[in-house]
Amino acid sequence: MEQPYVIGIDLGGTNTVFGVVDARGNVVVSASIKTGTHNDINKYLDDLIVGLTMLIEQVGGKEKIRGIGVGAPNGNYFTGSIEFAPNLPWSGKIPLAKLISERIGIPVALTNDANAAAIGEMTYGAARGMKDFIVITLGTGVGSGIVVNGNLVYGHDGFAGELGHMIVRRNGRKCGCGREGCLETYCSATGVARTAREYLSIRSDESSLRSLEPEKITSKDVYDAAINGDPMALEIFEATGKVLGEACADFITFSSPEAIILFGGLTKAGDLLMNPIRHHMEKNVLNIYKGKTKLLISQLKESDAAILGASALGWEAKETVTNPE
Amino acid sequence: MEQPYVIGIDLGGTNTVFGVVDARGNVVVSASIKTGTHNDINKYLDDLIVGLTMLIEQVGGKEKIRGIGVGAPNGNYFTGSIEFAPNLPWSGKIPLAKLISERIGIPVALTNDANAAAIGEMTYGAARGMKDFIVITLGTGVGSGIVVNGNLVYGHDGFAGELGHMIVRRNGRKCGCGREGCLETYCSATGVARTAREYLSIRSDESSLRSLEPEKITSKDVYDAAINGDPMALEIFEATGKVLGEACADFITFSSPEAIILFGGLTKAGDLLMNPIRHHMEKNVLNIYKGKTKLLISQLKESDAAILGASALGWEAKETVTNPE
Repeated sequence: MEQPYVIGIDLGGTNTVFGVVDARGNVVVSASIKTGTHNDINKYLDDLIVGLTMLIEQVGGKEKIRGIGVGAPNGNYFTGSIEFAPNLPWSGKIPLAKLISERIGIPVALTNDANAAAIGEMTYGAARGMKDFIVITLGTGVGSGIVVNGNLVYGHDGFAGELGHMIVRRNGRKCGCGREGCLETYCSATGVARTAREYLSIRSDESSLRSLEPEKITSKDVYDAAINGDPMALEIFEATGKVLGEACADFITFSSPEAIILFGGLTKAGDLLMNPIRHHMEKNVLNIYKGKTKLLISQLKESDAAILGASALGWEAKETVTNPE
Repeated sequence: MEQPYVIGIDLGGTNTVFGVVDARGNVVVSASIKTGTHNDINKYLDDLIVGLTMLIEQVGGKEKIRGIGVGAPNGNYFTGSIEFAPNLPWSGKIPLAKLISERIGIPVALTNDANAAAIGEMTYGAARGMKDFIVITLGTGVGSGIVVNGNLVYGHDGFAGELGHMIVRRNGRKCGCGREGCLETYCSATGVARTAREYLSIRSDESSLRSLEPEKITSKDVYDAAINGDPMALEIFEATGKVLGEACADFITFSSPEAIILFGGLTKAGDLLMNPIRHHMEKNVLNIYKGKTKLLISQLKESDAAILGASALGWEAKETVTNPE
């Protein structure tokens, strides 16, 4: 095989991790650079190219690389650009696929991070063999990648699948997007911490969470308290699962997926979160869908998941980015 | 051309209308039979076959017919069956595509009525040339057909796209599906009449609607009152448009369609309904989608729309229904 490898780049607000991946989904070598400290996109690219070149040499040169896949916040598959990403240091539209491809001479495809996760699940993970599924990423925010009939749903403009911004509570919590009641204000890691602060301030019952500084509480603290049987912490996971389960019931109404796959840090809560989601999803779903859609946790190895997801896109990267803006 | 025609059958709760359609979308001949009076599916089929045979003879025999498309409530494209349709006289699963095909010797494809409308819009109507759009049918209930990348979204079980049963108000109005707060309890023709009865009973302001018997009020009555400037009737359309506009904003989050196309009786209200929908859709949609998705009314001729929609499916009908249950 002439080109046995692809490269996956996961561009996050803090770090950019990247690695060389083989056809079976093994991360052969990997590395990372800081994202957030580079206000100049060209300096960021300089660092990234140095890192990539180093990895490429380790596996025998760029002739071995079929393509590069990038997962990035607000990444647009159609244009190969990052467009107006609120949590990245660069404003406006950054034609990142083109910029990397020009410098390194390998075809680059780019999409948003949640879409990359969906492609990763389909290629290497829990969605192997499935044609209809939804991946929901539960991290700092909530993202989603929707697959219909074996293809990712991009919509007419490349921005489909922002289920973290479905309004689940009219006039609900203020969201970073400027609107109110978005799913991610309740069901992200940040949302779980926010629920904890809300409960602590409006309620008076005892909780081990009261020993923490409210502003510093994280979803991990809530998890630790819940594992130790703290009733308020358990209730927070129940409330989080209720909102997400109800939302999943509505998602099913749209694309009737074989599975909804949860991905990201918050899934470490396991049954604490999965049980209430499953319960409220089944309770709220329309009759014809009852008992049909599986609720799964990502099977991608935590440490490699981001690279794997992005790399899967590398197999379909084409020589030229047709429509960079 | 050997087979210049298809046949479209629109199976409704009251009537079944069917017609022969040419490749340009002209309904050449049409007829109808009663649906509701036939409790025995075989007697219904007898009548339908007589009617179809008559039309087929008028256009020169069945050699001229490429295929038959059927749009029916709870129609499943994958199985060719009507499955547990609450408003039809036959219970359980009816393998209608197979039953018709066996009797008449022409391939038959079947889908639900809203999906048929979406295929009709794509083939002959407002969605020609579009690859991503959603059709919402506003009739006695609310149905939907979702097209992603040029293909109808069926989901893993053939039942995707029941947007009339998205929950738009938690603990809201009781729906015929057994749940509460479904979109169709607010935005169907029935929902508009229900809003009128609700306003009349809980409010005390004057309205020309007060001269009508509450239980007999229809969406047409509300329309007539609104056209004559009745403030309460105008407010009912504003409230209906608000719920539907907010829901459309959420639909866009899912599949980022080029257009949302409204279809069915309620669209006769024109700007009375379209203006508030458009206003609340744009007001509530996530920033990245603003100003991008068109809101359109179906361009299919009212009298022929149902037949046309179903007939468009006839072009892709295959000889054998592979998976009838």
